[in-house]
Amino acid sequence: MAENSLYYIGIDVGGTSVKEGLFDEEGNLLGKVSVPTPPLTDEAGFAAVTNGIEQLMAAAQQSMLFVRGIGLAVPCPVPASGLITMAANITIDPTGLKEAIEERCPHATVRYVNDANAAAMGELWRGSAEGHRSMVMVTIGTGLGGGVVLNGDVVDGAFGAGGEIGHIRVNPDETRICGCGLRGCLEQYASATGVVNNYLLECEARGVEPLELTGPSDSLTVFNACRAGDEVARAAIDTMVEYLSRGLQIVSAVVDPEVYVLGGGTSASADLFLEQLCDRYAARAFPASANTPIEVAKLGNDAGIFGAAYVALRSVVREA
Amino acid sequence: MAENSLYYIGIDVGGTSVKEGLFDEEGNLLGKVSVPTPPLTDEAGFAAVTNGIEQLMAAAQQSMLFVRGIGLAVPCPVPASGLITMAANITIDPTGLKEAIEERCPHATVRYVNDANAAAMGELWRGSAEGHRSMVMVTIGTGLGGGVVLNGDVVDGAFGAGGEIGHIRVNPDETRICGCGLRGCLEQYASATGVVNNYLLECEARGVEPLELTGPSDSLTVFNACRAGDEVARAAIDTMVEYLSRGLQIVSAVVDPEVYVLGGGTSASADLFLEQLCDRYAARAFPASANTPIEVAKLGNDAGIFGAAYVALRSVVREA
Repeated sequence: MAENSLYYIGIDVGGTSVKEGLFDEEGNLLGKVSVPTPPLTDEAGFAAVTNGIEQLMAAAQQSMLFVRGIGLAVPCPVPASGLITMAANITIDPTGLKEAIEERCPHATVRYVNDANAAAMGELWRGSAEGHRSMVMVTIGTGLGGGVVLNGDVVDGAFGAGGEIGHIRVNPDETRICGCGLRGCLEQYASATGVVNNYLLECEARGVEPLELTGPSDSLTVFNACRAGDEVARAAIDTMVEYLSRGLQIVSAVVDPEVYVLGGGTSASADLFLEQLCDRYAARAFPASANTPIEVAKLGNDAGIFGAAYVALRSVVREA
Repeated sequence: MAENSLYYIGIDVGGTSVKEGLFDEEGNLLGKVSVPTPPLTDEAGFAAVTNGIEQLMAAAQQSMLFVRGIGLAVPCPVPASGLITMAANITIDPTGLKEAIEERCPHATVRYVNDANAAAMGELWRGSAEGHRSMVMVTIGTGLGGGVVLNGDVVDGAFGAGGEIGHIRVNPDETRICGCGLRGCLEQYASATGVVNNYLLECEARGVEPLELTGPSDSLTVFNACRAGDEVARAAIDTMVEYLSRGLQIVSAVVDPEVYVLGGGTSASADLFLEQLCDRYAARAFPASANTPIEVAKLGNDAGIFGAAYVALRSVVREA
């Protein structure tokens, strides 16, 4: 058995699948497993998760005793207390699951983290923000998630709302209601759903028949149309960029990160808007932070497992 | 000589005076001195500061060898590097001053901190946020300064713009330009100057002759008029509260602090707007953080020396 070999597991609990990754202390991904998400409220559900850990450690020919930390990324607010009280898209008994994992991995520190915050920590550890101490990640998917990392640690927030930058109010005049119940949130304009809405509103305003979309967050069709020269699609993306630049301006005036990282499905189309976003951000930002770089994420769908493992590792380091 | 007696000095370098305070590790203020601010660019200027330290230690009958940390609060951005490059309201050679202090206090860690950030750390140490791990302070004076404290430490920001919440853009439609060169900044509506501007605009809109004011940031006259039942003054304060609630909503969606603290001269009139501010904030905030308490600062003009000393103490603890 190698000396000092301690392992970290990152678990990304999503609405459709639970992904688990095994990492060493340097952030090398040593193995991955994935299972469809069961209801995480009983022994069978808990076992689906702990069996994954066993599989990963067995494949690495290591004892469960060497699992030193386990991070669980979940799609809900995680307050500073670690006690999850709201979970919208998954069925989970957070305390039961944590206890079941602790029983199987007696030497492991187990910690929950919000999924967007986990993605930020992943990109900090081994992604586009590697080597930085502070960063803000913007995950642009169906919704718009954020993760704020300062001094190497994620900002969960006292009540679990740290990094909820999709719900920064960027348009005080908005009448449409956001999913969170507020109005004028960044997510309403700069998520995939937001881009589609921008496009449909733009079509309506111009009296143009919209393209056929596969669903309410099919921003890909809009991006592809823009690529093909569609002016209405371009205008929809301009609106996204306008609000996103307002959002980043605001974030810099609060925490002033070293770098921004754009992730999520939409970031694959960043070539269509990144330069424009950098320009508008620079024009709007408080002078000291006008040149903060904006990068595209590297880890894709693995950001969550990387980050969850890293959050666990950081907890262990702090405890030591 | 008492065992383990280490001391911390907080120095608040303002445009008119340099205030210095001596503290023990528990945050007890043991002595204070103040001198008019000299140009801090030559031996004479540096000596004005180091003589203050000597005076404080002599009065406490302690050797300069027991000064363990010195914090310097300055009215300019302090980047993560600690290297100050912009100083608008004071004449300072930051490196020269630091070296002069280090020479007189060979065992001390010397650290710069932005003045609004220092005030936040002061209130965290021994003021209204005592016992908290995270807080955001809003200092409402001629301008609107902010300080973000997370996990016990101040967020300076990578480029020194951490906590510049006066420059969050809360009104995208604004045409007037803020002192920072941007438009629609929180400071334009919620500083003392902002309240006066709100009042003058309100008078103009209503065709009312404004009260005589002593200057462009004489919000006290507006607050007093409101207290006496003046409806125009009330409307000006309503506008302040409206934008301040938007600002706090945004800050919570980024860092989600445990508590807000309102400081600066205007906070003395908080009885006129605090309840309304709490209500509007609660209605606007992301649900998880709708109940964040908003307190009034306790330390007054001493917040800066308390905070500067505490920043130095935290640096020493981190180094250890």
